[in-house]
Amino acid sequence: MQHAALLVSAYPSKRRFLLISRLHAWGETLEEAFEQCAIAMFNYITELELVEVKQVHHVVAQGHDMLSLLFHFLDELLYMFCAEPYLVAKRVKIVEFDRVNFRIKARAAGEEFTIGKHTQGADVKAITYSAMQIHDRPEAQRPELFVIIDI
Amino acid sequence: MQHAALLVSAYPSKRRFLLISRLHAWGETLEEAFEQCAIAMFNYITELELVEVKQVHHVVAQGHDMLSLLFHFLDELLYMFCAEPYLVAKRVKIVEFDRVNFRIKARAAGEEFTIGKHTQGADVKAITYSAMQIHDRPEAQRPELFVIIDI
Repeated sequence: MQHAALLVSAYPSKRRFLLISRLHAWGETLEEAFEQCAIAMFNYITELELVEVKQVHHVVAQGHDMLSLLFHFLDELLYMFCAEPYLVAKRVKIVEFDRVNFRIKARAAGEEFTIGKHTQGADVKAITYSAMQIHDRPEAQRPELFVIIDI
Repeated sequence: MQHAALLVSAYPSKRRFLLISRLHAWGETLEEAFEQCAIAMFNYITELELVEVKQVHHVVAQGHDMLSLLFHFLDELLYMFCAEPYLVAKRVKIVEFDRVNFRIKARAAGEEFTIGKHTQGADVKAITYSAMQIHDRPEAQRPELFVIIDI
């Protein structure tokens, strides 16, 4: 074993990498794909098997097009986790999906995040618009979404 | 607030999502891109700012082509973390890169992972060959790699 301190200078220190974390969700309908995308995000944050359904929180999201609607939908749910009521959603149900005015009303069911009871997964810092894709295909192929998140 | 239990059946329960975590690394040389990819992996596992260089571990990786060499290089380093010496590497230096026999000898410098001292990030379960890419371009463009990991 060589002395560690002597070796450090020989190692590259400049960061030349990126970590990309992407959510890919789909469903029978676009609503379901949105719901699944939200669950995927919470699944990143903690193991949903350990989350109980104890309370329901209502969220409203408003966009100016479908991409910004998806962004704000996820962002509202992330905010619900990062601030009061600190809720981790095990289930998300869209109760109103207004495609003309780009507005969503949804219910999120779960419980308050509690260290000790719940595991800490990735620290989701933000939703991004980077390479965001929404494929809404009502025919043979299912609707699907791709969202890159900052962790 | 409606009663939570009554609402659960109304929520979709089938999982229709995937989480994809990808490492993207580059360097002046292919060796550096490999080293950076390893650091990217450890950066996913824990915050490297909190890791000190206290010991050095030597790893050897053997492939049958460049892709499998990259796979085994990362896999050996992941194993070093998952089993004795449970080392988180803050620096990785390739000391021998044999492109003919697809063999790498490297030094990893860091310290034993300790809960309390180090943060727990993503639980990297495995390296995958899925959509793995190695672009080794010695001219104008830098060499770069893409590796998807299971978390």
